[in-house]
Amino acid sequence: MGKKVVTYGELLLRLSPEGHTRFVQADSFGAVYGGGEANTAVSLANFGYDAKFVSRLPDHEIGQAAINTLRQYGVDTTDIIRGGDRIGIYFLEKGAAQRPSKVIYDRAGSSFATAKADDYNWEKLLEGASWFHITGISPALSDEAAKASLEAVKTARRLGITVSCDINFRRKLWDKETAGRVMAEILEYTDIYIGGRDQAEELFGIPTNARDDSDYQAYKAVAEKLRERFGFKKVAITLRTTLSSDENKWAAMMYDGEKHCYSREYTSHIVDRVGGGDSFAAGLIYALCEGMDTQSAVDFAAAASCLKLSVEGDCNLMSADEVKALAFGSGSAQVQR
Amino acid sequence: MGKKVVTYGELLLRLSPEGHTRFVQADSFGAVYGGGEANTAVSLANFGYDAKFVSRLPDHEIGQAAINTLRQYGVDTTDIIRGGDRIGIYFLEKGAAQRPSKVIYDRAGSSFATAKADDYNWEKLLEGASWFHITGISPALSDEAAKASLEAVKTARRLGITVSCDINFRRKLWDKETAGRVMAEILEYTDIYIGGRDQAEELFGIPTNARDDSDYQAYKAVAEKLRERFGFKKVAITLRTTLSSDENKWAAMMYDGEKHCYSREYTSHIVDRVGGGDSFAAGLIYALCEGMDTQSAVDFAAAASCLKLSVEGDCNLMSADEVKALAFGSGSAQVQR
Amino acid sequence: MGKKVVTYGELLLRLSPEGHTRFVQADSFGAVYGGGEANTAVSLANFGYDAKFVSRLPDHEIGQAAINTLRQYGVDTTDIIRGGDRIGIYFLEKGAAQRPSKVIYDRAGSSFATAKADDYNWEKLLEGASWFHITGISPALSDEAAKASLEAVKTARRLGITVSCDINFRRKLWDKETAGRVMAEILEYTDIYIGGRDQAEELFGIPTNARDDSDYQAYKAVAEKLRERFGFKKVAITLRTTLSSDENKWAAMMYDGEKHCYSREYTSHIVDRVGGGDSFAAGLIYALCEGMDTQSAVDFAAAASCLKLSVEGDCNLMSADEVKALAFGSGSAQVQR
Amino acid sequence: MGKKVVTYGELLLRLSPEGHTRFVQADSFGAVYGGGEANTAVSLANFGYDAKFVSRLPDHEIGQAAINTLRQYGVDTTDIIRGGDRIGIYFLEKGAAQRPSKVIYDRAGSSFATAKADDYNWEKLLEGASWFHITGISPALSDEAAKASLEAVKTARRLGITVSCDINFRRKLWDKETAGRVMAEILEYTDIYIGGRDQAEELFGIPTNARDDSDYQAYKAVAEKLRERFGFKKVAITLRTTLSSDENKWAAMMYDGEKHCYSREYTSHIVDRVGGGDSFAAGLIYALCEGMDTQSAVDFAAAASCLKLSVEGDCNLMSADEVKALAFGSGSAQVQR
Amino acid sequence: MGKKVVTYGELLLRLSPEGHTRFVQADSFGAVYGGGEANTAVSLANFGYDAKFVSRLPDHEIGQAAINTLRQYGVDTTDIIRGGDRIGIYFLEKGAAQRPSKVIYDRAGSSFATAKADDYNWEKLLEGASWFHITGISPALSDEAAKASLEAVKTARRLGITVSCDINFRRKLWDKETAGRVMAEILEYTDIYIGGRDQAEELFGIPTNARDDSDYQAYKAVAEKLRERFGFKKVAITLRTTLSSDENKWAAMMYDGEKHCYSREYTSHIVDRVGGGDSFAAGLIYALCEGMDTQSAVDFAAAASCLKLSVEGDCNLMSADEVKALAFGSGSAQVQR
Amino acid sequence: MGKKVVTYGELLLRLSPEGHTRFVQADSFGAVYGGGEANTAVSLANFGYDAKFVSRLPDHEIGQAAINTLRQYGVDTTDIIRGGDRIGIYFLEKGAAQRPSKVIYDRAGSSFATAKADDYNWEKLLEGASWFHITGISPALSDEAAKASLEAVKTARRLGITVSCDINFRRKLWDKETAGRVMAEILEYTDIYIGGRDQAEELFGIPTNARDDSDYQAYKAVAEKLRERFGFKKVAITLRTTLSSDENKWAAMMYDGEKHCYSREYTSHIVDRVGGGDSFAAGLIYALCEGMDTQSAVDFAAAASCLKLSVEGDCNLMSADEVKALAFGSGSAQVQR
Repeated sequence: MGKKVVTYGELLLRLSPEGHTRFVQADSFGAVYGGGEANTAVSLANFGYDAKFVSRLPDHEIGQAAINTLRQYGVDTTDIIRGGDRIGIYFLEKGAAQRPSKVIYDRAGSSFATAKADDYNWEKLLEGASWFHITGISPALSDEAAKASLEAVKTARRLGITVSCDINFRRKLWDKETAGRVMAEILEYTDIYIGGRDQAEELFGIPTNARDDSDYQAYKAVAEKLRERFGFKKVAITLRTTLSSDENKWAAMMYDGEKHCYSREYTSHIVDRVGGGDSFAAGLIYALCEGMDTQSAVDFAAAASCLKLSVEGDCNLMSADEVKALAFGSGSAQVQR
Repeated sequence: MGKKVVTYGELLLRLSPEGHTRFVQADSFGAVYGGGEANTAVSLANFGYDAKFVSRLPDHEIGQAAINTLRQYGVDTTDIIRGGDRIGIYFLEKGAAQRPSKVIYDRAGSSFATAKADDYNWEKLLEGASWFHITGISPALSDEAAKASLEAVKTARRLGITVSCDINFRRKLWDKETAGRVMAEILEYTDIYIGGRDQAEELFGIPTNARDDSDYQAYKAVAEKLRERFGFKKVAITLRTTLSSDENKWAAMMYDGEKHCYSREYTSHIVDRVGGGDSFAAGLIYALCEGMDTQSAVDFAAAASCLKLSVEGDCNLMSADEVKALAFGSGSAQVQR
Repeated sequence: MGKKVVTYGELLLRLSPEGHTRFVQADSFGAVYGGGEANTAVSLANFGYDAKFVSRLPDHEIGQAAINTLRQYGVDTTDIIRGGDRIGIYFLEKGAAQRPSKVIYDRAGSSFATAKADDYNWEKLLEGASWFHITGISPALSDEAAKASLEAVKTARRLGITVSCDINFRRKLWDKETAGRVMAEILEYTDIYIGGRDQAEELFGIPTNARDDSDYQAYKAVAEKLRERFGFKKVAITLRTTLSSDENKWAAMMYDGEKHCYSREYTSHIVDRVGGGDSFAAGLIYALCEGMDTQSAVDFAAAASCLKLSVEGDCNLMSADEVKALAFGSGSAQVQR
Repeated sequence: MGKKVVTYGELLLRLSPEGHTRFVQADSFGAVYGGGEANTAVSLANFGYDAKFVSRLPDHEIGQAAINTLRQYGVDTTDIIRGGDRIGIYFLEKGAAQRPSKVIYDRAGSSFATAKADDYNWEKLLEGASWFHITGISPALSDEAAKASLEAVKTARRLGITVSCDINFRRKLWDKETAGRVMAEILEYTDIYIGGRDQAEELFGIPTNARDDSDYQAYKAVAEKLRERFGFKKVAITLRTTLSSDENKWAAMMYDGEKHCYSREYTSHIVDRVGGGDSFAAGLIYALCEGMDTQSAVDFAAAASCLKLSVEGDCNLMSADEVKALAFGSGSAQVQR
Repeated sequence: MGKKVVTYGELLLRLSPEGHTRFVQADSFGAVYGGGEANTAVSLANFGYDAKFVSRLPDHEIGQAAINTLRQYGVDTTDIIRGGDRIGIYFLEKGAAQRPSKVIYDRAGSSFATAKADDYNWEKLLEGASWFHITGISPALSDEAAKASLEAVKTARRLGITVSCDINFRRKLWDKETAGRVMAEILEYTDIYIGGRDQAEELFGIPTNARDDSDYQAYKAVAEKLRERFGFKKVAITLRTTLSSDENKWAAMMYDGEKHCYSREYTSHIVDRVGGGDSFAAGLIYALCEGMDTQSAVDFAAAASCLKLSVEGDCNLMSADEVKALAFGSGSAQVQR
Repeated sequence: MGKKVVTYGELLLRLSPEGHTRFVQADSFGAVYGGGEANTAVSLANFGYDAKFVSRLPDHEIGQAAINTLRQYGVDTTDIIRGGDRIGIYFLEKGAAQRPSKVIYDRAGSSFATAKADDYNWEKLLEGASWFHITGISPALSDEAAKASLEAVKTARRLGITVSCDINFRRKLWDKETAGRVMAEILEYTDIYIGGRDQAEELFGIPTNARDDSDYQAYKAVAEKLRERFGFKKVAITLRTTLSSDENKWAAMMYDGEKHCYSREYTSHIVDRVGGGDSFAAGLIYALCEGMDTQSAVDFAAAASCLKLSVEGDCNLMSADEVKALAFGSGSAQVQR
């Protein structure tokens, strides 16, 4: 077993019409249990790490099924609190070509959102951990979840545990102002910042000034200003370009105070777009825990998220060796036989 | 087109693991949209009637999919109100043999439950109708729904529209006392009572005194007392016996103030047990609208519900001719070719 | 390879909604290629015989798919004529419990029905065969098919080939009078008669006089009169009782001029009811070719048809050993491991 | 409800092997009910219009299932005549990469093809409509259908209803000469012409003179000559280029007597290629009814057909807003969450 | 977490054609990972116990998938050794009605069978356990497995851990003589004996003398003699009667040296017959660990195995409460809602 | 029927998770029976040839299912020997985008690998054949298979039968040295050499000296040297470039001693990558048997393998006409209707 990493967030039931069918055509829904921080935990477990996921789920069979999904990949679920009325749900219609994917959230009143901050004893939950990971989704779900998030990162800082935070700003969950205020507080206790293209601008007013989607160099300044303002050890920015519902470009950059390192750029035929960012976070955590340098770490993380897009479901089911083969190997997709 | 019948209630998304798999085994859920009163409307539309369903559903694609399900069978959905946040959901695990079916409700906060009584203009909604059907589920869902239910039956009475009410007491939704009080008020305006074995005892304290499940004669007195107390035109009592998750006995009796008529007893191998009672109600409404006598009506309604159990989903997809073939014909299941 | 048997008839595309769904619920149809005489050929091939099937099918990929289905089980399809416009189709909705199965025929104008009697060179087609099998379906499909059927049995008689004929009277295809006249002519050249309960009465006016479905003894007289009138070597009568769409009773009797032999009676839980009679015919042909006595032959044939009902699709996929295990063995359904 | 549009044509049962399997591999067929003019009606209903579909279908459950498919999307099916023997069928094998799709028609003798022209009372059928849409497929199916088509457009003209006609020439259904003669007569009463690249040349001898598939400008002259000859209000020509079975280019032009307007060109990854033209027609009808100018109308219609290719089945299940988002918006396929 | 139980055995990949299709019809196989002792561990985990499974599996993704199946239900898999070339496989064709199920073993050379006895350090593997469970399958697979089995029970005895052994004699794996000799040695260290009807006769020459399948009383003497010979604390005998492939009778008896206790007899409609005995063992272990008396324990165990037959797959996915509801409750299969 | 071709090799059961799911996600495996030489036989049968496949398979139902797969396409399977313990299996996880496909072999101890060279009577097996095809996989599986392979080609040479050999070097089955030695002996009796890019270098030390994947001209020298060394009539080299798991480039060259002919280069969207080379071999055999010249033959063979990649399963289900349409026609993938 590798390092012990703890993540905290909501685990949702995702319901998707099969293949490319639309909601109104569906007479069944594929059922997947996932969520940003849980996805990161699964990916880390698949890399061989001791990943624990902290959350709250209802004490019925659907809640149990969600837990079993994580256990299957070896995630430690013993600290998931059981209680509350319902599991958060989202309906996902997969897009195709020029037709975008559609998400309908039905997560209000979930066991996670109605949890009290006091339900979590962070001293105990973080015991033995060397890394704690959080995203901007949890604090968006309720005031108590925001409070719990802040207590978590404070406790982690106090215990000397590295904290990473993926901004993950979701306009459907909260507004920019609240998000900016709440996240700024959390980022005070964050070591590794992870964010998408425009999130620093939306939440913290740090302008991007990119000419277009391919102007990756523009993010150097953004990274520098973020680091300056919050004192991060490292700042990682993911650079996704949506070509169509079937095809994305994926790259990332990371700034460590000295070097701005850019990953290779991947053009991906998408099997399942959910969880790309979460697997990037997992890749980064693994890479840094393993002591890779900034360039290797961003390469590994970008390769991890690229590979995720080829896997059905929310979670990245690639081993560390498989990611390394793409990040540092030939990248050829030849069958071995 | 036959007679115009209006029904009112909640339309739910039902999510079931395929076949006999348990919740924790499911990686997809069959999706069916149904609900007691909607099921009755679909069955009546399949009998060739002009059936209108009144409800409230969210203004998103899942709400639309629910409506499309009804439209497909020719139900008039033009008066369904769009609004609110979510569609009620229930998870259904089909049992087998000695393993009982399991239901997990997730219907709190639905568009229907959060509707205001004022949202429904019953004068207009009931225009041109000759029958109105309601069940004891709607008033259980919220105070406003209870209020709307009462206004509906009052309006129907005023307009000279026949009212049927299926008691359908659900212990998970409300308690006996509240149910007894609220339903008693609704039954004041009800012409045709439909109820299960013990519901008159549970809600109104009318004892059954049946020796055992096969003591059908015991229900004569129950029917008489119900009619006496509420002044119903007719009282129908369904007599279901659960042999296992795969097998039921189904019979029914009806009392019209003069005769106590018993239907044939069916032993049914169950394909889908949901909607048995709703299709009984539809059968009864159809039979009485068509002018059948009490014996024929209870025979038709019992045959309708027996056949429903052989159909996947919530709704009875049998034509009136198919029901008649069982109710009044040979009852043989031979292929015609 | 065992004996060479030739059968002649139409091969149809059967389209069935999955499981117990009704036609109006189907968004896909299971596709099976079958037909009475083809089913008999497949069953014989599964018993290890050299079975040839003679027919006419369109020269397109759906016609080819039909042929491939037979080839897969080793049926000789080299004499199937390719031509005409379409393959006959029938839609089959599987019943359940009290709901009967439904068949919608769409076979008019098929390649088989539009074939000319001259298209078949029976001398050549029957070369080397020791048995020829035909049913009452083919002559019902067109005058030319009736003509071809008659020529086939005449040729078989001339060549000293045993002829069996399964009456298989289908009310939807032709009327009793025409059927009686045409079949009587064919039966002149038939050695082994196979028919259902009432077919001798319907077509040839030989009354059954059975008290009820369980009065198997009544068929002794029927068999005797049939044998007397047409000079058959043996007369077999199948005794099916439909309990529900899920359950049948199966038995059979055979009269050889001396003994009336009755098979064991089976109560069968039905997986797929199509092809029960066709597998009985195959069982009988096999048993008689193998030299079994009348009792063993009818036992083998009844066991074969009983087992067919447990197999999906039109065809009996049981080996001769598997049939013998039921017919002559313990009949227990224990797993061997 | 928006404008009332009537379309007339045949509704077929389409049977397709799942995914990329070939006919000979299929053990089930996906079942979709569609047809050019029905597809246009469904698309218009999805845009919120009151779309009525006129046709003739057999009076059995498969015919009913076809109707239910349309009802589900809100198409008015009350004027579909029930009668005749069968529903037209076509088998569709989806191609992939360099392997082309395959269609096997089995539509002869259908209820639609055997309908009499007198079966349709156009005065009554077109009552209250503001638009009538027809295609070149219906007149190809039988002389009576051709006669009914002509009567329909004549009646529409007399009633002042706008008529659109999609040429849709199908070589497998009739020859160029007959098609040219019959269609010319129908076009006399047509206001809006819709046709593919070479159809004006094939049917009416108006040469295209395009250098290659990308020479879109060549169609200006074609449009002008068509308008001149038949006096259309507007001429729309669709410009599809087949790159492979998985990928198409889609564009369109429209000429209104003054301007030649070209849509954006889309390169589409194809989910289901059937119905691209039908959704173009629906887009055009909607756009013109909504009063869009020529450029906007052709943009909307081209975007509609582009999006159709991303949807399973024959019908375009996009709302008008979704089409506008592509036609006039960013065109990005990003998930909104 | 409840008591800690360790089981040891082979985990197999089971491949089954879907539904009732036969091997020759299958174009896909349902994949389930199971094995007698693993099934018992899963059932115990579902009862809330800390169940550890000891085995050896290949170090590739199929081996990992097998492990994940167990982890999903919370079984401790940390002591499963990874190595060897292949996972044992068996093909299972589910029977129906009179058609028996079929098993084709392909387990020779598996990672488990080629493990060395020395690979298992029993002192360490059994640390902290209060119960060890083994079956007669493991020693049948190889000499080394037999040796490991013996060492395991010896170690358990030495450590004061209760040992249960399910005889599970499989004629296809070894002969009666060898089995009798090897098992006798293992039984020396066994506290709780579990066996089927005739296994004491087959392996140890203790005659049953039952008149027929319903002569349950005959097993009293067998139990007494077994206890006498091997000194067991308790002897449990399962009494299964195969009515057909769809229906079984299930009962059991247990003898504790004083009382012979018989469970209720269940007639079960079978969903999946595999694992009935394994879930009986789990039920017995749980009941005895919980301190139930002999009658309650055999009742609980019989109810557990009865319920297993209603669950797809090898494993019993019932909670202890669900089993108690059947064993000690009304046994009715009514839906609760 | 066309020419008679015999192929010899192992037939495997291939088990693949559905769609793009990974091994650890699979709860079912698609089952396909295939193998290099069997695939070639099926393709030839689809071209209308009399193709016989020689192999050894276990005498159980899974072995039978494998045979049925071939019979379905008309392959002559009468000389397949039944015996041995198991069918070889391989697990195939289909890759996507940058994620490569994965193969796990489980073929040791198969009926084919344990066959004796003496089991095959080549004089008799090759009777009447005009072509014999073999690959480098068979001799890699066991010494006896290598011996049988050599005897086969020697016998073919003696009988004047053309021999083709596809090198098909598989690193997981044997090492380069052994392969080089054994194959060199077989090639002594080979007329038509087929090999991939680097196989001449790996096995026979003939260097390729290609600058990169697109340097097709470099293979001229390789072909010349191969021909020189082994005296082949013709040398064909396939030129595959893996762009991703979804996309390949395919081309081929053939040298006949005079001309070096290059096929068109295809960029293929891949449905199923298995069997591309086997269908190339079939295409080449057909083309040469039909008397095509070198250029046409390599064009036909390359088109055949390109089309295979669009077909699910191992086998090329294209007719000769379909291949010709791509090889010599427009290559457009337009639907014909």
